[in-house]
Amino acid sequence: MNITGSTRVFYCIADPIAQVRAPELFNTLFHRHGVNAVMVPMQVKAEHLGETLRALFASPSVGGVALSIPHKAMASRAVGRATHDASIANAVNAIRRGEDGVLEGALFDGVGFARSLERLEINISSLQVLVIGAGGAASALAAALADRGCPHIALFDPDRFKAEQLARIIRAAYPTCMIEAVHSNDPTGFVLVVNASPLGLRPDDPLPVAVDRLGTDAFVYDILMKGQPTPLLREVHQRGLRGEPGFDMLIQQTGPYLDFFGFPELARAVAGEEAELRQLLEHSERV
Amino acid sequence: MNITGSTRVFYCIADPIAQVRAPELFNTLFHRHGVNAVMVPMQVKAEHLGETLRALFASPSVGGVALSIPHKAMASRAVGRATHDASIANAVNAIRRGEDGVLEGALFDGVGFARSLERLEINISSLQVLVIGAGGAASALAAALADRGCPHIALFDPDRFKAEQLARIIRAAYPTCMIEAVHSNDPTGFVLVVNASPLGLRPDDPLPVAVDRLGTDAFVYDILMKGQPTPLLREVHQRGLRGEPGFDMLIQQTGPYLDFFGFPELARAVAGEEAELRQLLEHSERV
Repeated sequence: MNITGSTRVFYCIADPIAQVRAPELFNTLFHRHGVNAVMVPMQVKAEHLGETLRALFASPSVGGVALSIPHKAMASRAVGRATHDASIANAVNAIRRGEDGVLEGALFDGVGFARSLERLEINISSLQVLVIGAGGAASALAAALADRGCPHIALFDPDRFKAEQLARIIRAAYPTCMIEAVHSNDPTGFVLVVNASPLGLRPDDPLPVAVDRLGTDAFVYDILMKGQPTPLLREVHQRGLRGEPGFDMLIQQTGPYLDFFGFPELARAVAGEEAELRQLLEHSERV
Repeated sequence: MNITGSTRVFYCIADPIAQVRAPELFNTLFHRHGVNAVMVPMQVKAEHLGETLRALFASPSVGGVALSIPHKAMASRAVGRATHDASIANAVNAIRRGEDGVLEGALFDGVGFARSLERLEINISSLQVLVIGAGGAASALAAALADRGCPHIALFDPDRFKAEQLARIIRAAYPTCMIEAVHSNDPTGFVLVVNASPLGLRPDDPLPVAVDRLGTDAFVYDILMKGQPTPLLREVHQRGLRGEPGFDMLIQQTGPYLDFFGFPELARAVAGEEAELRQLLEHSERV
C-alpha cells in the first residue's frame, strides 16, 4: 500500500476501537485492486462524534466514514439524507458526502445479515427469533428480519425502554411482523438467537443468553468478531449447537459499502472473493 | 502494512495536499521497522484547522500531526507548549498530545535544513543568504541560519509587512545576525538563495528569483519536493549552477520528528537509511 498526498482516506469510527475489522478488509481490497485509498481506525467518544464528523467531512481527502459500536444511532442525526434501511432503523454505519455537499447515511448491517443467513441456508420466513440488544446493529438486524418475512421477533435489552421503542418502530414499518420487547433473555423456544449487543467485547461481560436453555435446533448468530470464538460461541459449540461469528455479516455488506463509497467496480469484484476474505478475517483473529 | 483497530494514526495536514511526501516516508519507515502506525494525508482549509486539530486530538487513535503549507504559523496558536525553535519562528510543523493532555508543538524544518546544509558542505558562517518567503517554513529556515552563525540574511516576501515582522522576530532572538526585509527578490551577490515560498507548486507560478542574475558561485536551495526538477531548479541546472530540492531537508528532520512522535528507536535507525530514503522520494517523484 503506497499512501501519497492524493490518497483518499476512509475512517472506521468506534469506541472501543481495537476490535474493528473493517480497516483490514477494506485495505486488503483497495490494495489488491490497485485503488488509491486507505481506511484507518479512529476511536471517538460519543460526545465528540458530531464535531469529529464535521471536521472530517470538511476535508476533501476524506472519502467516507464507517461507523461501529456505539455510534450508529447517534450518527444518523449527523446526516441530511438516509437510505430506506437507515431511516427505519434510525441508524447509519456509513456516511459519505453527497454531490451537493449534504452528508448521506446508509446502513448495511441489515443486508449483510440477511445475505449471510441466506448463505447459511437459514430460512427466516417461519422462525421465531430472539435478538439481544436494541442499539444501531440490533435495529438494522430486526428491520432486515422483518423486511424478509420473519413472522416473530423478540427483542431483549437491559434498557427495556430502548427495546420497546425499537419494537414500535419496526412494527410501524412492517405491520405483518410480530415484534415485541421481552422481559427476559431466556432463549427457550427460539430457533434463531442473535447477539446484536456489545456483550462479549469485554472479558468480564456476562453471556448474552443462557446457553444451557437453548433448544437442540437452535442457531446462534453472534455479530461480534473480536476474540473468536467468543465465550458465547464457545459454549454453543461445546453443546454441539450451530453458531456463527460476525465475519460473514461484515463480508456480505462489503460490496454495498464499496458501492456507496464510490467504488462500484470493486464492489462487483468482491462477490468472487468472499472465501478469501473470510479466511483473512478468521486467520488474523487467531494470531 | 497491516492496519488494524489498534494502529496509531498520524496525519499530514496541508492545503493543497497532493505534493506532501511525509506519508510515503513515514509509512516506509513504520513498515520496514514493524511499527503499528500509519500516516495519512488530510487536506484542510485554513479556516478549518482549529476545529480539525481539536477533533483529531480528542481521539486516542491519533498519535500526532505533521503540518505543511499553509498551516505552520496558524497551527502554533493551537498548541499549549512549543519547543525553542517553534517559539522563535511562531510556527510548528509537528503537534503531539503531551502527557498531561496539553498539545505540544515543534518545528523541525530548521534542524532539517541545517543538517542538510552540513551534508552539502555549505558553511553558512560567512554567507549572505537570500530567503524567499516569510511563512512558517521561511521562519524556521531563517532562525536555523541565524542560530548557526549566518552573518547576513535578506528576507523577501511580496507581503513586505510579513517579511519585516519575521526579520524583527529573528533579530530579537539572534542579535548578532544582520537580518532585514528587502524590497526586491534580486539574487545578485547572494551565495545561498533559498526558496521557502510555495512558488513552484502551481504550473503558472512565476520563478521565485531571476536565475540569470545569480552569481556563478550561487547555490539555490528550493524546499519544494513536488514536480522535480521545479522550474527554478531546472533553470539553475541549465546555467550549470548547483541546486538542491527539499527531499534532504525532509529526510534530515525525519529522525527528530519520529523522536517527537514517540519512536526514539526508529529515530536512531533512520540515520543509517538516508540514502535509501532519498532514492525513494526521488524515484517516486519521477513516476
